Amino acid sequence: MNFLEERIVKDGIVKEGNVLKVDSFLNHQMDIALFDEMGAEFKKRFADANINKIVTIEASGIGIACIVARHFNVPVVFAKKSKSINIDGDVYKAEVESFTHKCKNNVIVSRKFLGPDDHVLIIDDFLANGCALQGLISIVNEAGGTVEGIGIAVEKGFQNGGRIIRNLGFHLESLAIVESMDATSGEIVFRQQ
Amino acid sequence: MNFLEERIVKDGIVKEGNVLKVDSFLNHQMDIALFDEMGAEFKKRFADANINKIVTIEASGIGIACIVARHFNVPVVFAKKSKSINIDGDVYKAEVESFTHKCKNNVIVSRKFLGPDDHVLIIDDFLANGCALQGLISIVNEAGGTVEGIGIAVEKGFQNGGRIIRNLGFHLESLAIVESMDATSGEIVFRQQ
Repeated sequence: MNFLEERIVKDGIVKEGNVLKVDSFLNHQMDIALFDEMGAEFKKRFADANINKIVTIEASGIGIACIVARHFNVPVVFAKKSKSINIDGDVYKAEVESFTHKCKNNVIVSRKFLGPDDHVLIIDDFLANGCALQGLISIVNEAGGTVEGIGIAVEKGFQNGGRIIRNLGFHLESLAIVESMDATSGEIVFRQQ
Repeated sequence: MNFLEERIVKDGIVKEGNVLKVDSFLNHQMDIALFDEMGAEFKKRFADANINKIVTIEASGIGIACIVARHFNVPVVFAKKSKSINIDGDVYKAEVESFTHKCKNNVIVSRKFLGPDDHVLIIDDFLANGCALQGLISIVNEAGGTVEGIGIAVEKGFQNGGRIIRNLGFHLESLAIVESMDATSGEIVFRQQ
């Protein structure tokens, strides 16, 4: 087991309905030293990629993306989930369905911050059915940019988001891939990588 | 002018309706090296404070809070703006009105992540009327924790949020305080600190 898998076993909680709660260290309370380790690991796994921007989605992707960005010395752009009056009308847009919140959101990125020169690493905390990720990929494509890689903290390997994204040819790296989990015993099985 | 004021003059855009757009480096695209400088400055300004946790609010506070947290070696907890099915029922709650989005939100923090032992530095990107900040202070108080300090990137000094918070006796540090700004000329005047 790697450092993140160990932490998930130690502090993650399996709930009914395929919910894995990692809110004590990943997406509500955030362990910055852990994020730093994740940044170093992503830097290793995407060592050959020419990355000049990190793209993520609010809210829980932002913290990880910012700490990871220190390892790549690049800025972060986060996709916003609702139209703010402070965003220019000139935005890239995608529709994203949230597994957690059971609702659809428009996610937007200002056209000023993504373009054909951008070589993007997409970062997010979770990958399940892949809807959020597909929205971010669609936005980078619309901007004419290149998705150089996708870095995920926790992938639910028993849902099909990861398989679809890999089938499409993207370089997707998930630090922990949960093959199965049991709410009764609390047991979590990870995919060998 | 300090480093943040210089950056605001260089890249900030003044819009009608007292809107200061800093989305190219602060709250949509995020300049991580700048955030790092902000973290070092907050560490200096709160050198005497005994801080074991940083609290912020989604979404645009999270990136700054995480980079600042590296300078204090503490975890970050971010208040969430809507009730997720992944949050336990046991939460602290405050109602917050957003200047930007013209709407009211419930913000919540899980009771697991704030308590009487917590000495909190609150971090946010903007301070205007102070509603978000008042909500976060109320949540820390409800938890029995102590607000040791409040670190803001950009304060709109011509709105009354900062004055109220300082009058209440909190140690509030804003890296840039805008005294006035002019949408026609683009001129921005900062308060001498």
